[in-house]
Amino acid sequence: MRSESKRLRPDLSFNFTVQLESTGGGEVLDPALSLIREMGCEILSVDMKRQNGAAPVLRVNFNAGGLEDIESLTRAFEDLHHIKLIETVDEVLRLHDKGKLETISRIPLVNKRELSMAYTPGVARVCRTIATDSDRGYDLSIKGNTVAVVTDGSAVLGLGDIGPVAAMPVMEGKAILFKRFGGVNAFPICLGTKIEDEIVSAVKAIAPGFGGINLEDISAPRCFPIEERLKKELDIPVFHDDQHGTAVVVLAALINALKIVNKSISSIKVVISGVGAAGVAVSDILMAAGVRNIIGCDRAGAIYDGRTEHMSQVKESYGLRTNPAKERGSLRDVLKGADVFIGVSGPGILKAGDVKPMADRPIAFALANPIPEIMPEEIKSFSAVIATGRSDYPNQINNVLCFPGIFSGALQCRARDINEEMKMAAAGAIAGLVKENELSSEYIIPSVFHPEVAARVAEATIDAARKTGVARL
Amino acid sequence: MRSESKRLRPDLSFNFTVQLESTGGGEVLDPALSLIREMGCEILSVDMKRQNGAAPVLRVNFNAGGLEDIESLTRAFEDLHHIKLIETVDEVLRLHDKGKLETISRIPLVNKRELSMAYTPGVARVCRTIATDSDRGYDLSIKGNTVAVVTDGSAVLGLGDIGPVAAMPVMEGKAILFKRFGGVNAFPICLGTKIEDEIVSAVKAIAPGFGGINLEDISAPRCFPIEERLKKELDIPVFHDDQHGTAVVVLAALINALKIVNKSISSIKVVISGVGAAGVAVSDILMAAGVRNIIGCDRAGAIYDGRTEHMSQVKESYGLRTNPAKERGSLRDVLKGADVFIGVSGPGILKAGDVKPMADRPIAFALANPIPEIMPEEIKSFSAVIATGRSDYPNQINNVLCFPGIFSGALQCRARDINEEMKMAAAGAIAGLVKENELSSEYIIPSVFHPEVAARVAEATIDAARKTGVARL
Repeated sequence: MRSESKRLRPDLSFNFTVQLESTGGGEVLDPALSLIREMGCEILSVDMKRQNGAAPVLRVNFNAGGLEDIESLTRAFEDLHHIKLIETVDEVLRLHDKGKLETISRIPLVNKRELSMAYTPGVARVCRTIATDSDRGYDLSIKGNTVAVVTDGSAVLGLGDIGPVAAMPVMEGKAILFKRFGGVNAFPICLGTKIEDEIVSAVKAIAPGFGGINLEDISAPRCFPIEERLKKELDIPVFHDDQHGTAVVVLAALINALKIVNKSISSIKVVISGVGAAGVAVSDILMAAGVRNIIGCDRAGAIYDGRTEHMSQVKESYGLRTNPAKERGSLRDVLKGADVFIGVSGPGILKAGDVKPMADRPIAFALANPIPEIMPEEIKSFSAVIATGRSDYPNQINNVLCFPGIFSGALQCRARDINEEMKMAAAGAIAGLVKENELSSEYIIPSVFHPEVAARVAEATIDAARKTGVARL
Repeated sequence: MRSESKRLRPDLSFNFTVQLESTGGGEVLDPALSLIREMGCEILSVDMKRQNGAAPVLRVNFNAGGLEDIESLTRAFEDLHHIKLIETVDEVLRLHDKGKLETISRIPLVNKRELSMAYTPGVARVCRTIATDSDRGYDLSIKGNTVAVVTDGSAVLGLGDIGPVAAMPVMEGKAILFKRFGGVNAFPICLGTKIEDEIVSAVKAIAPGFGGINLEDISAPRCFPIEERLKKELDIPVFHDDQHGTAVVVLAALINALKIVNKSISSIKVVISGVGAAGVAVSDILMAAGVRNIIGCDRAGAIYDGRTEHMSQVKESYGLRTNPAKERGSLRDVLKGADVFIGVSGPGILKAGDVKPMADRPIAFALANPIPEIMPEEIKSFSAVIATGRSDYPNQINNVLCFPGIFSGALQCRARDINEEMKMAAAGAIAGLVKENELSSEYIIPSVFHPEVAARVAEATIDAARKTGVARL
């Protein structure tokens, strides 16, 4: 939980409703609202009901800055003699009651006729049709439009290794976003193992019923060989969203940010904080898109060919293909003269003083969630473009812009894989949704609610899949 | 496909719609319908349209007896010069287009507010809540009301080993029945392996996100150790429906059938044809319910303690606990004097002459699907009660009567297991839905559309789970 010392401004993560009653017939509204505001909470709606001469009941919906606020508020209401706190509802938990996903029938099943056609005896002939021609499995079952959202719960959001059951709300969230934005069915598969071989075996075992596999929140470095092996062994697309979804949207945002500062992608120096799943994939897609000078940093500073401390196989390989000038030193050191900072690491690791020595008109993508590497207000005065992962600041780098459309496209053309060309095409499509006359430092990337995102991304993905020969339709 | 020689009466498995047009302005309706009837097809609906002076278009929906009928019909229409066959639609395949199941969001997701609460940043707090108290996973995600329908595609319906993708239509069918009748979410998991250890590992791996595992259409004898191991190693109910669903509904039907013939369960002799998954489980539940003399037969005849040919570990153990008089011989031999025949084997293996030497007022459950061990009309004149697995005869023994309710009950009380007591209770509840004054030789078991089935089965299941200490709520 957030601590008092690092108290954040209230947001919807801590949305609550309290129900209050006057005990002595006295005034409720004003004192209650004052109290809630005094706690630093943000009131969203107020609803007053008086029924048949009974005491008036007040409902207030508000955002708190943490659970401490709710505890303090409860104590404060106890101290007020003329107001009784009847109920406190945690709206986020209530929204999650019984889960967010549902499986439903596309057939009403109201009579024996339907039952006989959708189940036995009619279904037998459908099975035989697929048994004779396995490709028919794509259109005579949900396989052709269904993705498994697979995790082991080892790197969920910024929460770390919370295990498969605690990961369910995120995976269900992902599944409903797949449907809402891409029209794709998706189902959470939360694995009770963190062993690479077991994860690969389990995903291979369940793959026949799915048209694609979206890996999610699997910690580095295991995520790399898991994805690589599955891509090789399965004939359906496998896509680790933390890596490639992030990479696609970062590239899209960077394409447009560079237009603002009028710099060319081949000339810029990019510094990336964090060389986990996202950092490595972002680096790779940026290099594929033309960036030549990219330097990744971990807690020990810049990664370079020849570094010996705090290294791993992934970092060795990363050092070989990045940082051509073999720059050494801390994140702060290598940021000097850099054109672009991309943070995919942790909260508050950057100071305004670290950003100031960057090149003229710096671009900063501080993507750690929910608390960025640096808050936008701290660097706004001297930065050209700022993006975060948050929905309450401009330029939200949100994977939702990518994964529904890229899978929708891959499924529609029955792609065997989601390859680099398809990802680049998806990034181009996202960037292209911001028209030249709309582009500004505060609008480099479309909203997730932009009505054309998924369709455009899907089209671009299909085109690239066909050009590279991985489309089967 | 069905062959001409074994042509069956037309049913919904072969439901088609043809669209026909008059080419010379001549009569279409009568000659077309005559032709369809001559092919032995059953016409369900006729629809005639004439638009703006264009040639009239006739649509006829009908059941055929097999695909040969459609081929013959197509040729016959080609021979008619004044009628043109415009289109033939296979309605069963059309119903299955894009699959029968769908995953949907329970939250509209129309604005950033919902997105912030259902996904990041709000969802993080829900994950933390579960990480702190894993039991909350049952109510803050779909786990608490969701079942995996797991198969390896090795024994699908009567079709045998058709593989995981071809099994999808049946598993999706099962999933939509779970929802329609039990209000339970279900999702098909079709495994690309038939190796016992790999199936067990895969199901264990995916188990954290589910409240229960419904095993389906896994061939014997592998189904026995797979179920046994999973029941032992998982803390959620595991239920192989081919075994236990069938067993529960057979027991329910037998309880009521015995009332018709006024025989007591402890005195009857039961002969079972087929000692696969269903046969063994039916035998076990009947013995648990009081049957003392039960004899199982396979292709080599009666199984008895000491038989040496065509034996297996499962049959050895089966022989030890059944057939107390160690009767030997063919199915026909041991049927002499039997009170009950239960067929869970193959089509047409029984002759009327085999049934005649049974005891007075014999009961015959011929459950092979879609073609029973013997057709009801062949033994109707001398049998007291007949049941089949078919929806077009009275007394359909249909697992749909059991699995939605028994899982609904097990999930509601968060049972660790579905044990024998719960199955017996479910059978009693199903039998109890046929009131004494309704009971007849043609109505021993409620319809799958009986509105109370799932709720009554769930209640009985919950009661039994609480009494036997497996309920966690």
